Amino acid sequence: MAEKKMVEAITSMDVDFAQWYTDIVKKAELIEYTSVKGCMVIRPYGYAIWENIQRILDGMFKVTGHENVCMPMFIPESLLQKEKDHVEGFAPEVAWVTHGGKDELEEKLCVRPTSETLFCEHYANIIQSWRDLPKLYNQWVSVVRWEKTTRPFLRSREFLWQEGHTIHATAEEAVTETEKMLNVYADFCERYLAMPVIKGKKTESDKFAGAEATYAIEALMHDGKALQAGTSHYFGDGFAKAFDITYADKENKRVHPHQTSWGVTTRLIGAVIMTHGDDNGLVLPPDIAPVQAVIIPVASHKPGVIEKATELKEMLAKNYRVKLDDSDNSPGWKFAEYEMKGVPLRIEIGPRDIENNQCVVAMRVGGEKVAVSLDEINLVVGQKLEEIRALMYKKALENRENKTYCCKTMDEIKDTLAEKGDGFVMAMWCGDEECEDKVKEITGVGSRCIPFDQKNIDDKCVCCGKPATCMVCWGKAY
Amino acid sequence: MAEKKMVEAITSMDVDFAQWYTDIVKKAELIEYTSVKGCMVIRPYGYAIWENIQRILDGMFKVTGHENVCMPMFIPESLLQKEKDHVEGFAPEVAWVTHGGKDELEEKLCVRPTSETLFCEHYANIIQSWRDLPKLYNQWVSVVRWEKTTRPFLRSREFLWQEGHTIHATAEEAVTETEKMLNVYADFCERYLAMPVIKGKKTESDKFAGAEATYAIEALMHDGKALQAGTSHYFGDGFAKAFDITYADKENKRVHPHQTSWGVTTRLIGAVIMTHGDDNGLVLPPDIAPVQAVIIPVASHKPGVIEKATELKEMLAKNYRVKLDDSDNSPGWKFAEYEMKGVPLRIEIGPRDIENNQCVVAMRVGGEKVAVSLDEINLVVGQKLEEIRALMYKKALENRENKTYCCKTMDEIKDTLAEKGDGFVMAMWCGDEECEDKVKEITGVGSRCIPFDQKNIDDKCVCCGKPATCMVCWGKAY
Repeated sequence: MAEKKMVEAITSMDVDFAQWYTDIVKKAELIEYTSVKGCMVIRPYGYAIWENIQRILDGMFKVTGHENVCMPMFIPESLLQKEKDHVEGFAPEVAWVTHGGKDELEEKLCVRPTSETLFCEHYANIIQSWRDLPKLYNQWVSVVRWEKTTRPFLRSREFLWQEGHTIHATAEEAVTETEKMLNVYADFCERYLAMPVIKGKKTESDKFAGAEATYAIEALMHDGKALQAGTSHYFGDGFAKAFDITYADKENKRVHPHQTSWGVTTRLIGAVIMTHGDDNGLVLPPDIAPVQAVIIPVASHKPGVIEKATELKEMLAKNYRVKLDDSDNSPGWKFAEYEMKGVPLRIEIGPRDIENNQCVVAMRVGGEKVAVSLDEINLVVGQKLEEIRALMYKKALENRENKTYCCKTMDEIKDTLAEKGDGFVMAMWCGDEECEDKVKEITGVGSRCIPFDQKNIDDKCVCCGKPATCMVCWGKAY
Repeated sequence: MAEKKMVEAITSMDVDFAQWYTDIVKKAELIEYTSVKGCMVIRPYGYAIWENIQRILDGMFKVTGHENVCMPMFIPESLLQKEKDHVEGFAPEVAWVTHGGKDELEEKLCVRPTSETLFCEHYANIIQSWRDLPKLYNQWVSVVRWEKTTRPFLRSREFLWQEGHTIHATAEEAVTETEKMLNVYADFCERYLAMPVIKGKKTESDKFAGAEATYAIEALMHDGKALQAGTSHYFGDGFAKAFDITYADKENKRVHPHQTSWGVTTRLIGAVIMTHGDDNGLVLPPDIAPVQAVIIPVASHKPGVIEKATELKEMLAKNYRVKLDDSDNSPGWKFAEYEMKGVPLRIEIGPRDIENNQCVVAMRVGGEKVAVSLDEINLVVGQKLEEIRALMYKKALENRENKTYCCKTMDEIKDTLAEKGDGFVMAMWCGDEECEDKVKEITGVGSRCIPFDQKNIDDKCVCCGKPATCMVCWGKAY
């Protein structure tokens, strides 16, 4: 039997980061292209990552009192048009269904780009009194936005996401919810994806279409570019007014409720790749890795090796996601394959290990390789996975800190970026949209968010020199 | 504070079964209608039922070696057209996307009605040698079919489902898979939905578009109508030939692989409603009930009642899905509400119960109401849930047996149905499509399937009198 073909080399990230990314998503078998432009197949290994993300986040949503629902995938044109800003923001990029079978539809339907309008119609149907509030909803679906240029996970015409939608009696409750869910996202990214994020508020020009305020978490990728990893929107009562949603308060007066929405997408998988990956391939955070430890038998033709490896697998499988690769490919091929696939731990076991009642554990991050007694392996795997998570977070944070620059002038921004490469630029802003545009035009970095964690770098706007109102985090965005 | 409005009465099932069904799906808050004709909102209580179905089935798929993937929701017209029978079956009922933003698309895309064509394109890309086989895939998505008349869960323009798609080196393996997954569906329905099903093969005229053979499970609803609850298709190498999918076998010869697909949908929720429901509302099988036991405090203003009820809830929540309703609605309102929502067990606890270290457990099915010691309640809840499941299965099986008629002549079919009402008719068939059509035309019942479990009712076809080849299960279908 011929061995499976060589694990193909991937482009070095320093040579061509974009090609490195494309190589990884294909060669680690996360996705495959299709004849539907801008849409992809998420393959089992990629989808298993998403399932882990879903499982953890869904638990966090349920603990915070949210319930899952499912809205239709279609929105009638007239419904989409009810909120003015919202339709302006989304209409240019929606896919339109115009025919059902052979018949032209009386009213065309768009494939949902987001579902605020559907939730609003539903709220209007089911909410009568203050007793019906709040409603804390979420749905796991796919949405469609007709993007011109697309990249797997980062920007595709169809993508998977969750969209939370909530409606509250008071503005205060809705604001609290908006902030709470941004914190849930930040905690999720830092704890489970080992990815540090900056929490902040979007500027007026960068708000979600129809929102009063948009909050976001921003992460810095290995190449110094910024990636918006999640958003949370406060709508005030704008949608409620547009959709005529009212409830009877305790004094039996009809008043408008207040709404929020919040979402993260399969983009998080792209963020994980570009935060942690290296020239050997993917590096997966243990909590979302489809396989947390792969067992590779060495000299597996020798008596007892496969049996012992199987026994080890069965023991570990009670606590971890473990795979035993007892195929006839060579150990060398397997080492490279699972390294490329970002499996956090590799466990080797051969005749000599068995004699010594041990196995050898190698970490995907940090390169440590140690012999571990089979009596202790169950515990050690847990410890190593936690070590890996901490190490990944530390490396990602160091990368971000090394690439975060505080600047006081436009020249300083330009020079710093020219000298050190892309990164987050922290600089003061007067709040004027003209200055925001000018910074982007002149220095190439746009406003990512106004971090909650403010520092007073200077008293003056980096652009116009007038009094600054806040520090902005600027960057080049994916 | 005004009490929540009365639990609304639902139409009696004997008066108007269709209205009874519609009342239940609305009043038990399973769905809500939308302005998108034929599409619905699945509300939290309905969606939680689907999540339980998903969780259990997904586990069964993974145990049998299947992996989840996600294909695009769009199919280019040219791709849909590659397999002749398939496009003929589906093209008349698909929704077409013709525009992206303001631009007309070069090629129109249909919203997937099913994904065989997308899987085939993917297989052609990723399968090279016998080493790449089998691929055992599944996806949980929604699909769209432009139906003229729709009913919640039973027939809607968009519905949720899972579609399994597998590809194998040999025809034999693919046939085995087709049968295996039909058995998984049957086991699931009988064990977890407490719903007996008949396993069988569809006649030629009733096969899936593009299949060599279609197997199905058929259930009998309370009103004597049949409901197809799941299907499993064997494709032979027809799709592989149409899509030019080949692999190098061990002799390095290029050969066509063999395929299957299989699916169940949110229709199962409709099946559960119509199998188990009664004039008081929903009756949910314990395994898929969002709430398995509801705790209702009695005289909750008395000291210690809420505390004890909360304690009870916390203890039971470790093993069961439990809800404590400590709202200010009256116990009577709550009794009716949770009865209508089909919660399997109601647990009442009041001051006198607490004095006696007990609570009162009432079963939604069978009407039993017993006092149970608080020391034993944890165990008893598990026993009662299992009792309920067994009782529900028994009742459903009895209903089916009472409504299953063996007939030898067309007149017998007509007379039996006229006298006893709708049900399954078991009658012999020669295998000729003309007779199949004639039976339906004359007696009103169509062929549901050719049961695997054959009985020799007669030697002659019920229609033409020529030698029979098999017994067919006939019925009126949802």
